[in-house]
Amino acid sequence: MTLRIAEIFGPTIQGEGALIGQPTVFIRAGGCDYRCSWCDSLHAVESRFRHDWAPMQPAAIMDRVAQLSGGQPLMVSISGGNPAIQDFGPVIALGRKAGYGFACETQGSVARDWFAGLALLVLSPKPPSSGQATDWAAFDACLAAAGDAPRVMKIVIFDEADLEWARDAAARYPGLTLYLQPGNPETDPDRPVDPQGLADRMLWLVEATVGRGWLTPRILPQLHVLIWGNRRGV
Amino acid sequence: MTLRIAEIFGPTIQGEGALIGQPTVFIRAGGCDYRCSWCDSLHAVESRFRHDWAPMQPAAIMDRVAQLSGGQPLMVSISGGNPAIQDFGPVIALGRKAGYGFACETQGSVARDWFAGLALLVLSPKPPSSGQATDWAAFDACLAAAGDAPRVMKIVIFDEADLEWARDAAARYPGLTLYLQPGNPETDPDRPVDPQGLADRMLWLVEATVGRGWLTPRILPQLHVLIWGNRRGV
Repeated sequence: MTLRIAEIFGPTIQGEGALIGQPTVFIRAGGCDYRCSWCDSLHAVESRFRHDWAPMQPAAIMDRVAQLSGGQPLMVSISGGNPAIQDFGPVIALGRKAGYGFACETQGSVARDWFAGLALLVLSPKPPSSGQATDWAAFDACLAAAGDAPRVMKIVIFDEADLEWARDAAARYPGLTLYLQPGNPETDPDRPVDPQGLADRMLWLVEATVGRGWLTPRILPQLHVLIWGNRRGV
Repeated sequence: MTLRIAEIFGPTIQGEGALIGQPTVFIRAGGCDYRCSWCDSLHAVESRFRHDWAPMQPAAIMDRVAQLSGGQPLMVSISGGNPAIQDFGPVIALGRKAGYGFACETQGSVARDWFAGLALLVLSPKPPSSGQATDWAAFDACLAAAGDAPRVMKIVIFDEADLEWARDAAARYPGLTLYLQPGNPETDPDRPVDPQGLADRMLWLVEATVGRGWLTPRILPQLHVLIWGNRRGV
């Protein structure tokens, strides 16, 4: 069984969401069923990059992870692209036997039985600014597939319409902890980020959320972008 | 019963540690049994500022918190100074009845029975760069006082000696999740922070920690300083 892998890198810290700050090795899967207008990982999404995606067996993937971590078990984050369009079950089974924990980030469009083996399933449905539509029945199937595995929801916010959409999504899933994340409009790895612009977007999101009396979501920036900019592999 | 309160502000997001990103109202207690060399809250520590600390009854404190939150229960963080030199038990009892949750941050030098009523006790022992010495028996008493309340440890890191000290502290408490936080050498609220300097310190800490194969602590910056600088009341 072969998986298409865009990159494996780390250990570095998780830069987003519930595990922010946690030393992590990242497995970025190639291929996606979405085309978000503001995608920051097109190199793992668009077919024109598919020749850069290594076909790897599960054992080779875990060998590479162990090499990077010096053989020490740690948190492994499976992202993409949408990793749920591939079967990561064998990778997770191998890794868990060696003591690794796995988080997976997906938009929630494809349910997989291997979600139940995760230490954390991060479901990140895409708001209107993405240009994508959410199939809530598929999303519900993802939640169900995770079973007892911890699950959270993360939504990227570019504007007021996204924030209203997130509020509706939160109302639909009152039991899921929600993370809001300001969008990053500059995703070209060859161009420097604008730190003040990122801070301003974060400030706006905090004020817009708290200002409307919405006090339950956690609001976090993309820490790695604040610290490293748009560089890949960190 | 009267408490000395340096400031009450929010809601804003928690900028540090386990609850990073969580909308929070902050109660900053006046007075401290430590004098850390790099303290960023001297206005809540040194006696020369004591005339700025409002004497407040527990009911008045919770009235102010409720006014700030529009009456909505949310997370309240009790910090300082060292809040454990005062009795916050009545504030926590009043607040919990109204649905508020409480986190408390203290160095762990004074144990209090009200730790057991917290949603989170953050124990932040001070490394060598602070110029303070840790009384581990007192620290153990704080852990015991918290009982079943969730507890984490947070250590500010300025240099290699601090990092080695943190590693020993982590070995002493293998069951406590540890958060490492890069120190901020510029604490004057009237001077702008140096974003690149902060990013560089964070980068150094990630590389120094992960680079020595230490993969268990979570590493987080002071997010509020990255976003707002050293301004007070945000």
